Amino acid sequence: MMGTEGKVIRCKAAVAWVAGKPLSIEEVEVAPPKAHEIRIKIVATGVCHTDLAYLCETSKKKKPRALPLVLGHEGAGVVESVGPGVTKVSPGDKVIPLFLPQCGECECCRSPKTNLCTKNWENLELGVLADGTSRISCRGQQMYQFMGMSTFSEYTVVGDDNVTKICAEAPLDRVCLLGCGVATGYGAPLNTGKVEPGSTCAVFGLGAVGLATVFGCKTAGAKRIIAVDINQDKSEIAKSSGATEYVNPIDYSKPIQEVLVELTGGGVDYSFECVGNVDVMRAALESCRPAFGTCVIVGWTDKADMSVSPDDILMGRTLKGTYFGGWKSVESVPRLVEKYMSGKLPIDQLITHTLTLEQVNEAFQLMTSGQSIRTVIRM
Amino acid sequence: MMGTEGKVIRCKAAVAWVAGKPLSIEEVEVAPPKAHEIRIKIVATGVCHTDLAYLCETSKKKKPRALPLVLGHEGAGVVESVGPGVTKVSPGDKVIPLFLPQCGECECCRSPKTNLCTKNWENLELGVLADGTSRISCRGQQMYQFMGMSTFSEYTVVGDDNVTKICAEAPLDRVCLLGCGVATGYGAPLNTGKVEPGSTCAVFGLGAVGLATVFGCKTAGAKRIIAVDINQDKSEIAKSSGATEYVNPIDYSKPIQEVLVELTGGGVDYSFECVGNVDVMRAALESCRPAFGTCVIVGWTDKADMSVSPDDILMGRTLKGTYFGGWKSVESVPRLVEKYMSGKLPIDQLITHTLTLEQVNEAFQLMTSGQSIRTVIRM
Repeated sequence: MMGTEGKVIRCKAAVAWVAGKPLSIEEVEVAPPKAHEIRIKIVATGVCHTDLAYLCETSKKKKPRALPLVLGHEGAGVVESVGPGVTKVSPGDKVIPLFLPQCGECECCRSPKTNLCTKNWENLELGVLADGTSRISCRGQQMYQFMGMSTFSEYTVVGDDNVTKICAEAPLDRVCLLGCGVATGYGAPLNTGKVEPGSTCAVFGLGAVGLATVFGCKTAGAKRIIAVDINQDKSEIAKSSGATEYVNPIDYSKPIQEVLVELTGGGVDYSFECVGNVDVMRAALESCRPAFGTCVIVGWTDKADMSVSPDDILMGRTLKGTYFGGWKSVESVPRLVEKYMSGKLPIDQLITHTLTLEQVNEAFQLMTSGQSIRTVIRM
Repeated sequence: MMGTEGKVIRCKAAVAWVAGKPLSIEEVEVAPPKAHEIRIKIVATGVCHTDLAYLCETSKKKKPRALPLVLGHEGAGVVESVGPGVTKVSPGDKVIPLFLPQCGECECCRSPKTNLCTKNWENLELGVLADGTSRISCRGQQMYQFMGMSTFSEYTVVGDDNVTKICAEAPLDRVCLLGCGVATGYGAPLNTGKVEPGSTCAVFGLGAVGLATVFGCKTAGAKRIIAVDINQDKSEIAKSSGATEYVNPIDYSKPIQEVLVELTGGGVDYSFECVGNVDVMRAALESCRPAFGTCVIVGWTDKADMSVSPDDILMGRTLKGTYFGGWKSVESVPRLVEKYMSGKLPIDQLITHTLTLEQVNEAFQLMTSGQSIRTVIRM
């Protein structure tokens, strides 16, 4: 259909050759999709904190980072071609690739308790597709595909359980955020925390994930939503996302958890850690009220362990985590796109910068300096 | 009625003068109950690990241990006299004193989500009754009452929300274990873990609490119950309590969590830490399957923090704690006594030793050496 079917496509991608170093824009070769694979022309991709964390954090785990690597996991695009056996999408379909699959058949997919499909999980973590290899190479060398995705490439290939078709009218440079950050944040209070109407919530970290979490708390009917960030500039957007209060830990001499316990007369009903920092995780847990406070970890880090006082747990606090906001990915993302299209899920205000693929390192800088909420790269 | 009403009672008690040292049997003076207080003639008391832990562990918290102190919080006895305003019990009633009250009026009592009544909580933690003092003194010095209880005394005084009347036929030297260990263990899977029929459970630590947890898992309909303890002698009683398997971590070179993950093909649905050791807590969490494994902390420690890998939480494991097994104390303990009386809750097999109050230090030795499951002291 596009004249490229069955052929290797040469295109641009941002390659991570060395951990912690800037990405390099390279010409890569993207092989045709194999059986049950889909090749996508990426139209837009968000730049997520996890891309940078994976690139820069020294892992405490034994296994080394898979390098060289093409990052990016929050994209949207158009199906270019499909491999044998693919029935769910056709060339020309608008799609969002999904690092969390939904095969519909594994024990987890069949359970209402979780969205953590186990299909091909180990390979995705390693950065390869189902057959143990990737479809992207550069100068003759195989590139790992971050979480089986690699949306920092003009074209990529993903497994057919790792993609979902969305409505033809969706603006891809907006809804790409539903491939990770907004879906994750919005789902955390709804699916994982199961925030009850009238409750009090605290959200730590006001990036795209945190702001979507704030909005999810509002959607769940929370009465009081306390947004917490050390960056005062986030105060306004926190409030327009649904926060009833903004608290800056820098304004207090005592630990933020003590501040929140005092502000709420005993602690919040639900807290959400949207930073990926183990000290903030502890603060979030300790901000919860005893007896039935629930702390949901949303941010990711591999750098250190979190420390927990057993007393905090014995006194009735629950520690949970959310992954992709608890959404069963294939069936949920199209519905989230529709929610956005009908004006019920704000995404636009989270996109503060739009850059080109060549500017991807600038996007990281905007993120770490706190200047951006989310940068979208338009291919 | 007993000729002692309104008078100070002189009797024996085991006094902790110095942290970490053996208890000393002393003559103490037990004052009459004030308004909304009850004086109880203790007939029997279990010796719980928490008594010893409180006495011996160096607290990481700033606040020092309240000393001198009369320990003991797992007792049963007969009401000797009541103070003004007490309507729930009368002299002669068989009762179990409850370190966790159920006032029926606080926010927590009115919530179905928790049993953690907040009535007078801070004073109970400090070791005093509602008015900020204790009713026990020795040589003119006020003794703190551990958790507002002090069942290592022939007589004690407790608040009227900290006691429940039980049936007149109950053998006090058995059902006293429902004042702490058996209630806590039995309730952990039923109320806190909410173990589902057919599931796989692991229970770490096979003291009275752990064995009651095993039985609770069985009652909940668990299909596979893996009992874990480094003391091989616990194997038999674990199985007679309902365990389907016994695993000794000493028999393996790899960490016990890896053993359990292999044994179960991915991890258990529910794990219970009944030791009070932060390394075992981590092992229990890591023994849980991703996606929806739940780890319930049952054992208490104040010595150190637990370390948690954020990844383990993000991948869908939940960390919760139970306090008094999640039972709303006043209403539940009489029902648990009835369950015991009708043969549906085994307690007898947990009581391996019966000693006198003078032998209380021996009871601690039997506990730490792993020779006893539970020692009951008969006054």
